[in-house]
Amino acid sequence: MPDAIATQSAVLAAVDTGLEESRARLFDLLRIPSISAQPAHADDCRHAAEWVRDELRGLGFAAELRPTPGHPVVLGHHPGPAGYRGPHVLFYGHYDVQPVDPVELWHSPPFEPQLVDGPHGKRFVARGAVDDKGQMMMFVEALRAWKAAAGEIPARVTVLIEGEEEVGSINLEPFLKANQGELEADLALISDTGMWDVNTPAVTTRLRGLVYTEFTLKAANRDLHSGLFGGSALNPLNAIARILGELKDADGRIQVPGFYDDVTPVSNAQAAEWDALGFDEATFLGKIGLRVPAGERGLPALQRLWARPTADINGVWGGYSGPGAKTVIPAEASAKISFRLVPRQNPDRIVEGLKRFVQDRLPPDAEVVWNFCATGPAIEVPTDSTWVRAAREILGEEYGRPAVMIGSGGSVPVVSSLKRLLGIDTLLMGFGLDDDQVHSPNEKFEQVCFHHGIRSHARLLGRFAAGA
Amino acid sequence: MPDAIATQSAVLAAVDTGLEESRARLFDLLRIPSISAQPAHADDCRHAAEWVRDELRGLGFAAELRPTPGHPVVLGHHPGPAGYRGPHVLFYGHYDVQPVDPVELWHSPPFEPQLVDGPHGKRFVARGAVDDKGQMMMFVEALRAWKAAAGEIPARVTVLIEGEEEVGSINLEPFLKANQGELEADLALISDTGMWDVNTPAVTTRLRGLVYTEFTLKAANRDLHSGLFGGSALNPLNAIARILGELKDADGRIQVPGFYDDVTPVSNAQAAEWDALGFDEATFLGKIGLRVPAGERGLPALQRLWARPTADINGVWGGYSGPGAKTVIPAEASAKISFRLVPRQNPDRIVEGLKRFVQDRLPPDAEVVWNFCATGPAIEVPTDSTWVRAAREILGEEYGRPAVMIGSGGSVPVVSSLKRLLGIDTLLMGFGLDDDQVHSPNEKFEQVCFHHGIRSHARLLGRFAAGA
Repeated sequence: MPDAIATQSAVLAAVDTGLEESRARLFDLLRIPSISAQPAHADDCRHAAEWVRDELRGLGFAAELRPTPGHPVVLGHHPGPAGYRGPHVLFYGHYDVQPVDPVELWHSPPFEPQLVDGPHGKRFVARGAVDDKGQMMMFVEALRAWKAAAGEIPARVTVLIEGEEEVGSINLEPFLKANQGELEADLALISDTGMWDVNTPAVTTRLRGLVYTEFTLKAANRDLHSGLFGGSALNPLNAIARILGELKDADGRIQVPGFYDDVTPVSNAQAAEWDALGFDEATFLGKIGLRVPAGERGLPALQRLWARPTADINGVWGGYSGPGAKTVIPAEASAKISFRLVPRQNPDRIVEGLKRFVQDRLPPDAEVVWNFCATGPAIEVPTDSTWVRAAREILGEEYGRPAVMIGSGGSVPVVSSLKRLLGIDTLLMGFGLDDDQVHSPNEKFEQVCFHHGIRSHARLLGRFAAGA
Repeated sequence: MPDAIATQSAVLAAVDTGLEESRARLFDLLRIPSISAQPAHADDCRHAAEWVRDELRGLGFAAELRPTPGHPVVLGHHPGPAGYRGPHVLFYGHYDVQPVDPVELWHSPPFEPQLVDGPHGKRFVARGAVDDKGQMMMFVEALRAWKAAAGEIPARVTVLIEGEEEVGSINLEPFLKANQGELEADLALISDTGMWDVNTPAVTTRLRGLVYTEFTLKAANRDLHSGLFGGSALNPLNAIARILGELKDADGRIQVPGFYDDVTPVSNAQAAEWDALGFDEATFLGKIGLRVPAGERGLPALQRLWARPTADINGVWGGYSGPGAKTVIPAEASAKISFRLVPRQNPDRIVEGLKRFVQDRLPPDAEVVWNFCATGPAIEVPTDSTWVRAAREILGEEYGRPAVMIGSGGSVPVVSSLKRLLGIDTLLMGFGLDDDQVHSPNEKFEQVCFHHGIRSHARLLGRFAAGA
């Protein structure tokens, strides 16, 4: 197919020459502080959604904002070329970002994207640079290059960009159910995961699930003076510390009843494949200033990160945290706790177990109030599908070395929703790096990853157009 | 001494007729948000100090602000009448107040004092209403009534009003040492404690000591994504919860090494005296919405509150506490912990023990930073001194029923400093009630307590003038 090869060359050339403009557009989007968790940023979320919608319209998509009880979904459709016979692709991304605290640790304002030099060349620094605005825009820019160089969007594409991924995609499932017909597709494509390293592309075939909860322990009906009441009145901070401190035993085993009932070890073959990656945990930890692995004892690092569940306290607050001393016994104390889950663990059963765990340790007079709870099961993507294989091939061509199949400790809740509700398998082709500081101050995205990512998506679109 | 009796009657009448103006002056002082813990309120602290200085000057005192490395001390002297032969009295109080959070629980702005109706008549609601602006002003108003009705301040008085009591009086000891000669006195007098109940006056003869500390547990060099790092990286919130959760065992015994080494049981006589007070812990707890005593098992309530040490967590913070979910493993977590101490416990040894307790439980890679530490030992006041006896007598006259000798679970650090550095014993005659919401939202002071308090101080000044 000399035509196809020439077209691909022209499209990739268009990606290369347009890179600076692609970056400028991404920076425009990064300037919108679309923090979905914070009600004060609701208008910014809407603004980001409108921005994405307008980009899609500019590429010829029929695109619109679709309301949800929370932030709107952007939904766009393009039929592809006349007579298109390839797969109908559903691209999923999210325009919302994580909160920015602790904001004082950022070297530049989180929503003023910076182009700075790093060991891999230029990088983009901003909240959302990689998660997920940067990764989402790679696909949009690949579509743009196709349109510019080949005159058309090469495949039948539905684009679904939500605004609540960072708050557990709470309104996405009802949306998927309500729009089932409109969301039919042959495969889903997501760029919200990572590479093995900056030179080694990867397809992610395993994602951990998530249970995220927040609760408050209530005791007295008001804050108390610790001198006048200490020795008689229950202190909810002491009580919550006791409960949280017992979440794991000395070996890092999670003590929630029934927690490991459905956890199975990875296969020997899987374990061997991961061992072959030669993951160096000392280096991994060294980059974040740590030396000693802190998870379950007696398991290799990649199993702990990809195939074992965790329990992390994500926030605790209560009493006085200002400067100096306040001798208070507070009326209440709160915590956010989350669990990463592995395949076969049932999130609802974990929530039940956690509630029992807390209730069993509740001192007399304490009351527990569950403020919220978001869940999503773990995922295993079929590794032998046409499209996983195609992705590995085009990544191999783009990078000049084989792509590897990896797991991820993170969660992309939509993957299980798409499978369960719409029967669609997902291809996870991502370009993030471990040190991208996702969810942290100074989040960044390497320009070289962004660039390869656009080119890889452009190549994959060519495969779709060719039917495989 | 018919003259003395007539004078006392005139002075008490002046207290009564001047009550509304006394209250208005107190309200002026309560409007100054002199929160010593918060640097933003440094000017307000100075303003409060100047206000007190000016009041003293108005009464004929030689009064001035004396600088410290923190907030200034107000120091005033009055020689008393010519030929005065009674005791030289050092009155101590503090013009600083506690922070106001959680401010949303106040029914009126904390620094806009309100006169509201309650079961004991009018009450004053404001931060500092009772602790200690209201109690301090009772003495000032008693001096004023003497001046108005008898034409003179009846005793030789030094007034020392500090601005850092609520932050551990950190600069007071150096000040006492540096001004030893100027602070000589025969007794110290403090109104910063409570009555037994609204009808039963009390002299406090026992105060618990205090160790107050803050520390931070540091782990990774930045906040981490709990999906990408969970299972490998240390979570300092999990670690601090484990440490804090082990502070006490299931019976409420504090686990800091050596903590109880110097704790002795109260005498049988003391225990019997307290039992005779008929303290009803169920009612005490019921007022704050609790039912079950939470201190050490197997001890009467008044012993737990007055004669047993405690360990209370006063604040914990770390990670994300905003709305919604943030899947973060924070870089650090912090806590404020304080201990109430009993006589013979050495605060320095308790601090050492706590540091060892934390260090022993520190996971690999965690670092502990001690942010600050304030200490003061517990106090036992001699119960048989001339002035304790005099105070009980005038309180008995004022209230028409005997005053009782009680303990207090709180701390007044200056009492031990005065004894140790200047050799002065302190008389603690206070008019607060248990439900005054000291350090809590909606702090209040009963007008009836304020009124009796001024009258009691006026009577006591008469005793000083009479020489006993």
